[in-house]
Amino acid sequence: MQERAKATRRSLLEAAAQLFAEQGYAATSVNDISARSGRTSGAVYFHYTGKEGIALAVVEDRFATWSQLAAPYEDETVPPLERLVALSYAIAHDLARDPVTRAGARLWAERTVITAPVPDPFALWTTAATRLLAQARLAGHLNERVRPARTARTLVRSFFGLCTLTDALEGTTALDDRLTDWWHLTLPSLRPQPPRGNLPAGL
Amino acid sequence: MQERAKATRRSLLEAAAQLFAEQGYAATSVNDISARSGRTSGAVYFHYTGKEGIALAVVEDRFATWSQLAAPYEDETVPPLERLVALSYAIAHDLARDPVTRAGARLWAERTVITAPVPDPFALWTTAATRLLAQARLAGHLNERVRPARTARTLVRSFFGLCTLTDALEGTTALDDRLTDWWHLTLPSLRPQPPRGNLPAGL
Repeated sequence: MQERAKATRRSLLEAAAQLFAEQGYAATSVNDISARSGRTSGAVYFHYTGKEGIALAVVEDRFATWSQLAAPYEDETVPPLERLVALSYAIAHDLARDPVTRAGARLWAERTVITAPVPDPFALWTTAATRLLAQARLAGHLNERVRPARTARTLVRSFFGLCTLTDALEGTTALDDRLTDWWHLTLPSLRPQPPRGNLPAGL
Repeated sequence: MQERAKATRRSLLEAAAQLFAEQGYAATSVNDISARSGRTSGAVYFHYTGKEGIALAVVEDRFATWSQLAAPYEDETVPPLERLVALSYAIAHDLARDPVTRAGARLWAERTVITAPVPDPFALWTTAATRLLAQARLAGHLNERVRPARTARTLVRSFFGLCTLTDALEGTTALDDRLTDWWHLTLPSLRPQPPRGNLPAGL
């Protein structure tokens, strides 16, 4: 693609993301995207086939893919549970501060008003978390009762719920602190049991 | 209110709840509610001032109030943490199976397309959970590091996120099992530390 076409596509995508993040899918028109980006409405139809096409491109650009987050969790010199925790803060940071990620999350939440299927990152996150938990087990850093795939699924869902509900109820500035509260509650169950402790029976 | 007027109001509310739960706020019209309930459109305007009014009445009828759930958590012969767990399964059951509760949750999720503020149950749940955790502490059933109000807030948000995301990704039939997975991960951090165990340092 020519550089100029690339620049046009990117500026349309970022303008659309800002608008979707601020006011949602239903309230945003192709004209709004054109006005915000300083490009023509025709450019939206030419590059993205319209409002739904650009919304899906926004979701796929960051929220549903997270390719930019691969690096920190692949550094095997860092213990796996530490990488899991760091990954969660990186995701929360983007959910709070990156307009394209925020727009993707909002569009996913509003998926019932979008005709096409809206992709989500949950399978990807669950795979990443499963791998990190399995590595932690190999390293002897995981409680023996923890089953990686099952626990990863639970972690991903409660983590994402915590982030979206904190955003809705308190705003994004509270996100780091609430995530720390959540890890204080969750991390002890992941760590190995103390050698002689007798934890009371579970559920 | 006359019995006949009460019956009309209730049948309108239940028809509207079914439709909101199935197809969402935007796709449901006053005519749909009239057709589903077998009452006139005029009755919707007379009893609820229209679609937004009946939507808010649906949210307040169950999702945002939970008055029907007061009983099990007030029975002081049952240990407080057991009541907390039982309460979570009762809420998950209604989120999965009661159409008025489901509609309320969906309308809350779709609140950006509703002009009026949509009430939510989270402050109420957090107060209830805080009280149960405080009772557990008094009874010596709580880990001494757990601060009731802060932990209640974390529990409510991750619980609700788990429920809504499980519903979205797997459907409601998985809800009980996923909630059990979540308690297996969460409950050990709430229970008192074993007398001699040395838990590894937290975060």
